[in-house]
Amino acid sequence: MNEIDQTINQEPLTVTHRSQIKRLPQRGNYEREAIYQILDEGLVCHVGFAVDGQPVVIPTAYGRVGDQLYIHGSPASRMLRSLQNGIEVCVTVTLLDGLVLARSAFHHSMNYRSVVIFGTATTVEDTEQKQEALQAFTEHVVPGRWAEVRLPSRQEIQGTLVLSLPLTEASAKVRSGPPNDDEADYSLPVWAGVIPLQVVTGEAIVDPRLQQEINLPAYVQNYTRSPSR
Amino acid sequence: MNEIDQTINQEPLTVTHRSQIKRLPQRGNYEREAIYQILDEGLVCHVGFAVDGQPVVIPTAYGRVGDQLYIHGSPASRMLRSLQNGIEVCVTVTLLDGLVLARSAFHHSMNYRSVVIFGTATTVEDTEQKQEALQAFTEHVVPGRWAEVRLPSRQEIQGTLVLSLPLTEASAKVRSGPPNDDEADYSLPVWAGVIPLQVVTGEAIVDPRLQQEINLPAYVQNYTRSPSR
Repeated sequence: MNEIDQTINQEPLTVTHRSQIKRLPQRGNYEREAIYQILDEGLVCHVGFAVDGQPVVIPTAYGRVGDQLYIHGSPASRMLRSLQNGIEVCVTVTLLDGLVLARSAFHHSMNYRSVVIFGTATTVEDTEQKQEALQAFTEHVVPGRWAEVRLPSRQEIQGTLVLSLPLTEASAKVRSGPPNDDEADYSLPVWAGVIPLQVVTGEAIVDPRLQQEINLPAYVQNYTRSPSR
Repeated sequence: MNEIDQTINQEPLTVTHRSQIKRLPQRGNYEREAIYQILDEGLVCHVGFAVDGQPVVIPTAYGRVGDQLYIHGSPASRMLRSLQNGIEVCVTVTLLDGLVLARSAFHHSMNYRSVVIFGTATTVEDTEQKQEALQAFTEHVVPGRWAEVRLPSRQEIQGTLVLSLPLTEASAKVRSGPPNDDEADYSLPVWAGVIPLQVVTGEAIVDPRLQQEINLPAYVQNYTRSPSR
C-alpha cells in the first residue's frame, strides 16, 4: 500500500452556530493545526449519534487522513440501523493534562485539550479507501506497526464498517495553567496548584502465545503518546 | 456539611434494549460494583444529548453519590435550552488500559473499561442536594480536598447548574488480556502483545501566586488515579 496522502486543506475552519465555543470562548481555537495535534495525540474518541432521538455515546478508535476522520468499531452495529444516507454525528476527543486545585471549591478545574467535531458520517464503500482507513487506524495507535503485520484480507476489509467524517466543522477547547481564584481568596492558607496528568506506557507484555524469540520492536520499546508536546 | 451518604442499591441493574451490549456481549457487565469502580476511577465523562436531533458530546466532570451521578460544567449552556422536564442523556466513561498488538492488522485492539449510562437528567434545585453534588465533584477528583478549601457560597451554589442522573440503566464493557489472533497467524514472525497504558501524575506545580509557605498536602503528594486496581 502506498504512503497515506496527508495533504491538509490550508483554509481555516468555518465557525458555525454549533461548533462555536459558547462557554468560556477565550478557550476556543478553530485552527486546523491545533485541532489536528489533539486528534493525533488522542487514542479514543467518543462518537455521539441519535437513535430515534435517544443519544448514544460510544468510545471507539479512529484515524485521521488529511482532512478526513475515519472511525470504526463498536458504534457500527447501532449506527448501521440509522445509516442510509449518512448519519449526523458529534465526535469528541479529550486529553486530560492536569487537575487544577484552587483555594475555593468553586474554582477547581481541569487542564485539558479537547476537540468537538460535527458532521455527517458516511460509510466508506471503496476498497482502496477502506484500506487507507485501516492503515490510518493502525498507524495512528502504533506508528510503524503497519509495515510488520499481516495486512487485512479482502474478506476482513469487507467485514469492517468504516465511517468517514470530513473535518470541516470542528473546534478545539484548551485550558492550561494555574487556578483562577477570586482575588479575596488568594490570601487563604490553602495549598493551590496543578497536579499534572499524563498517559504513560508500562513495560510491554509479551503475548504468551508468541512462538519464537522475537525482539521487541523499536516502535514498541520507545512508544510514547505525547508526539506533539 | 455531613458525610455524603453513599448507600448503594443492592438490586442488580435491569438490562434494557438500549443498555444491552450487542457487539461482543461477552465483554458486558451489569453489576453495580463493576460499573461503580469504573465510574470512581474515571475523571471525565462524555455527555451526549440531542439538540433538535443533532447529537452533541461534551467532556465534563462528574461525581457519584450512591446511585446518582451528578454532572455539571460546560454542557450547561447548551443543555439548558433543552432542559425543562428533563433531558435524555447518554453518559460514557472510558478508561484506557492498553494497546493490543496482534499479528494481523485486523485483530489490533485496545484494552479498556467503559461504562455507558442512559437516562433522563434533571436539574438539581434543592440547595442541600446541590451542596452534596459539589462536594462529590471535588472529592471525586481529589479525595480529601473538600475539608481544606473555601466552601461554595450561596451565590456560587445558585450560579452552578447541576444535573442528576439516576444509575438505573447502565452497562460496563471491558476488554483485557493478550491479542486474539486467527489460529493460522500465530506462527507468523511478528511480535505480539500489549502495551499497558496508565494515567500518572507528575510533580505538583505550585500556583505562582501562593502567598505563603504551605506544605504540599499528603493527598496531593500521594495522589494516584487507580484506586480500584
